[in-house]
Amino acid sequence: MEIEGECKMDRVLLIYSGGLDSTTCLFWALDEFEEVYTLTFFYGQKHDIEIEYSKKTLLLASELKGKRVYNKYFELDLSRVHKNALTSDDVEIPSHRDERIISSEIPSTYVAFRNGIFLSIATAFAEALNISNIAGGWNAIDYSGYPDCRGEFIRTFERAINYGTKFGATGGKFKILTPLIRMSKAEIIRFGKEHGADYSYAYSCYRGREEPCGTCDACILRAKGFREAGYEDDFLLRLKREKGI
Amino acid sequence: MEIEGECKMDRVLLIYSGGLDSTTCLFWALDEFEEVYTLTFFYGQKHDIEIEYSKKTLLLASELKGKRVYNKYFELDLSRVHKNALTSDDVEIPSHRDERIISSEIPSTYVAFRNGIFLSIATAFAEALNISNIAGGWNAIDYSGYPDCRGEFIRTFERAINYGTKFGATGGKFKILTPLIRMSKAEIIRFGKEHGADYSYAYSCYRGREEPCGTCDACILRAKGFREAGYEDDFLLRLKREKGI
Repeated sequence: MEIEGECKMDRVLLIYSGGLDSTTCLFWALDEFEEVYTLTFFYGQKHDIEIEYSKKTLLLASELKGKRVYNKYFELDLSRVHKNALTSDDVEIPSHRDERIISSEIPSTYVAFRNGIFLSIATAFAEALNISNIAGGWNAIDYSGYPDCRGEFIRTFERAINYGTKFGATGGKFKILTPLIRMSKAEIIRFGKEHGADYSYAYSCYRGREEPCGTCDACILRAKGFREAGYEDDFLLRLKREKGI
Repeated sequence: MEIEGECKMDRVLLIYSGGLDSTTCLFWALDEFEEVYTLTFFYGQKHDIEIEYSKKTLLLASELKGKRVYNKYFELDLSRVHKNALTSDDVEIPSHRDERIISSEIPSTYVAFRNGIFLSIATAFAEALNISNIAGGWNAIDYSGYPDCRGEFIRTFERAINYGTKFGATGGKFKILTPLIRMSKAEIIRFGKEHGADYSYAYSCYRGREEPCGTCDACILRAKGFREAGYEDDFLLRLKREKGI
């Protein structure tokens, strides 16, 4: 395929795991862009149940917004790079950490440069699909302390890809959109709700069980977010409903 | 595995395809660093014969320098991203292009953001292995016109990874070493020879045949390099020898 020099501005490629943040971005993107592409990674995560859920959210969002979503998948085995709590059975996922300290340190769930790798591959897809907007649900407030979620990284990476691609080198300009970067988890949920987000299948738990554990960092930050935003968690409501409670 | 805050300065991780440029870097690295790690990618290249040859060069270099090389491999299928002449049978590899214009345009062998993707994964490996030096054989003079081989890209990418990794975010500093970036092909070969490089198994041809085609951009730039450097190509000499010519 030829890569054209011009990308359309009305399209976006969203890095999409199906978690709370990227689901928020999905509903936002469906409001803001004419065409929405998602890119989901199988990277050796123990909680690959998130991918099954992410497909349910894609269908649901597409239905609610009356708009097709074009989804892409990419596979690479990051468990081959190093042992960490998200890809290795030998490393335990931390439990019951204080919600106030979670964002202040880099935990054992850090997968070395995962977002950098995802962004690089997203850049290649965006270039191939003639899409100049790459979006993701990175945020640097109520987050897990990962350095590759911070604004300085994303801005510098954006400059790099505009040097390092045919599109950027021939007059185009990629933008990396980070709608959630300065939001707290509660603000993210409120922002999602403004865009009609339904979190019934948005899966966050690092443990990958059908029923979220409630004790990993992702579950703790999510519960804090819903509590502060004044909403009940759609996912838990659905579980209760399905169980007839 | 825990990622330590401090990387040793006497170790290097070299992105290594086994071609002329990365073979030059391999011999340089064996002279300059105490420990040399290489990272080789299976990315869906049609000319994956280069990987078999790269292993022969690793053995040869290791023997000649009396030093072990630690080699790592990583697999990801970039043919899934877009069709290009290096990964798709449907796109022809350009032939007989004028050696003076090869570096002036971006050809059909451009694999979208390949070096960015390789650098991202190398960053993850380097961080996991506690190595602060990442090296590669990028060069921007007698090269194939790929934007992700240029100095501006590499320098900006280096800044990005120092923001986006645990190592960089906790006081460490990755360096991306580009010993060949300003060299012509002839200078690269002379530099390699100063470091004792043996190119007998350094494979460059895009067509992936046992015997290099002599007509693709990589073959043309290589021939020009050896001619200008005043050396015979070790690879062709070996072929002749093996055939008893």
